[in-house]
Amino acid sequence: MSASDPLPSWNEGITKNAIIDFVTRTSTAGSSDYVPMNERIAVFDNDGTLWCEMPVPVQAFFVNDRLKALAPLHPEWQRTEPFKSMLAGDIKTAMATGLKGLAELVMTTHAGMTTDEFVLIVRAWLAKARHPQLNRPFTEAIYQPMLEVLAFLRARGFTTFIVSGGGAEFMRVFAEDVYGVPPHHVIGSTIKTHFELRGGVPVLSREAVLDFFDDKAGKPVSINKFIGRRPIACFGNSDGDREMLIWTTVGRNDERPSFGMIVHHTDAQREFAYDRQHVLSGQLDKALDEAETHGWLLADMKNDWNVVFPTAVRSAQVSRS
Amino acid sequence: MSASDPLPSWNEGITKNAIIDFVTRTSTAGSSDYVPMNERIAVFDNDGTLWCEMPVPVQAFFVNDRLKALAPLHPEWQRTEPFKSMLAGDIKTAMATGLKGLAELVMTTHAGMTTDEFVLIVRAWLAKARHPQLNRPFTEAIYQPMLEVLAFLRARGFTTFIVSGGGAEFMRVFAEDVYGVPPHHVIGSTIKTHFELRGGVPVLSREAVLDFFDDKAGKPVSINKFIGRRPIACFGNSDGDREMLIWTTVGRNDERPSFGMIVHHTDAQREFAYDRQHVLSGQLDKALDEAETHGWLLADMKNDWNVVFPTAVRSAQVSRS
Repeated sequence: MSASDPLPSWNEGITKNAIIDFVTRTSTAGSSDYVPMNERIAVFDNDGTLWCEMPVPVQAFFVNDRLKALAPLHPEWQRTEPFKSMLAGDIKTAMATGLKGLAELVMTTHAGMTTDEFVLIVRAWLAKARHPQLNRPFTEAIYQPMLEVLAFLRARGFTTFIVSGGGAEFMRVFAEDVYGVPPHHVIGSTIKTHFELRGGVPVLSREAVLDFFDDKAGKPVSINKFIGRRPIACFGNSDGDREMLIWTTVGRNDERPSFGMIVHHTDAQREFAYDRQHVLSGQLDKALDEAETHGWLLADMKNDWNVVFPTAVRSAQVSRS
Repeated sequence: MSASDPLPSWNEGITKNAIIDFVTRTSTAGSSDYVPMNERIAVFDNDGTLWCEMPVPVQAFFVNDRLKALAPLHPEWQRTEPFKSMLAGDIKTAMATGLKGLAELVMTTHAGMTTDEFVLIVRAWLAKARHPQLNRPFTEAIYQPMLEVLAFLRARGFTTFIVSGGGAEFMRVFAEDVYGVPPHHVIGSTIKTHFELRGGVPVLSREAVLDFFDDKAGKPVSINKFIGRRPIACFGNSDGDREMLIWTTVGRNDERPSFGMIVHHTDAQREFAYDRQHVLSGQLDKALDEAETHGWLLADMKNDWNVVFPTAVRSAQVSRS
């Protein structure tokens, strides 16, 4: 490992070499695999790819805490699901109510305010909330090796986008400070908003109506809508990322080289170990079956990463809280 | 006018000075109006702001030519509006059928193919089509003074976005070569697409269903959805841009300086002269009334611009066709 190693948290081996090789040959002038800078687009899932999604995705903790804060105004929640389970701290049972119940929880906590108000709510929550098992702020339950991949790609002229099933406006509150990904490079699920003038002052009001659910086959759709160009590199961790992995790496008609990687959660000691059996979120089953056929690299967290989480709290995060 | 004049096609005067002043003070470290680079977002309407929208928007010419190409397969179009008028070359009568008729024309010509196929269709059309009065390709019926504004902003660390009622995927075919605006900085109206595998090859299929109409109050909504940050500069030319001008310049809670400009079509000799009376598209009425109240600058095409269209065909355009 040299002083100029772009990926110091990755152990030497096939995975690390493959990342460095792809990035180097696509960004080196004169290489037969050279890709012009404007086409060097890399997309990253967020939950389970850039930060921890266990025992439930971070946004579920946000929903839970917001429900508790709002509960005094809603005594009826003590008697009705999925609110009842959430308030009792049983997030898994609440999540098991399925999409309809989840949507109700999400809308109750994410709509009915302006976009500016929502940012303040999320920011205040992130400043205080901590991961229950990892005992650190959620914004530090992020993967140091993946931060290095993001930085390496950008240093070589790539534009790095997040393409996540999580809420776009939720992620945008922290993605720039934490990942170096500005708001317009954050794509995610959205609810509808509308413009209105309140006493002459413009606001965008968040409505309890889904605009787009950015998961599975929705990911290539949103990549096309927001980026307008096929990525040449895609990083995911679950079946939710399967279609964008396919869109990035299969049957390209532009003859560009491409790269697909799956973060495989194999490290029960330092993080969590899960793949096929984890059905509530983060399930990796079909994409795991297809990885070899499509040449998707498996990043084995246990063996490929010498560090999982950042050890030092970075200044950007301190100044935020 | 010095050799380093960033806006040589603008006559000396209040408008030119105001643009240079705003860009300089927001991008000069130590200035009390300094804005960090990531927040230097500028948004531009396209039709009538960056290129000519008269006698009808360019995309209407595209629709017209596509209908003619497809007409042999649809003999029924000779008897039914709005197809009948369009095929007879009477675009204005066809447009007067209103939104429903327009939607039918747009969907017939914009849906039913893959996203890749649509790009090829638009590219082939742009390479041959010419503006009927200006006698030049549409991609050269663009405003040289506005190209200079785009380049000046980018040279000073701004990110320039197009936010247009026109089709996002239509504009993306030429915006990078012609304006230097890459696909992911082009926001516009969209139709729905869906992902599918055809013999193992992924495609995005364009459906005859409107996804989002990016005009008027829709523009702040899409700015929030795609950019996730309020612009500090906004350039438009019609009432379709009124809400995004307001969103950029009125009642900001972040104390950022802001800038709004309206391209006023006052030059019947070199281009077209229109504002309040032009109701089919490009009407400038309410926003003209409000310009003084909100401090929006009027760029008077006749008096502020010493050149309207680029004189030299640039290499990027030649290589495309």
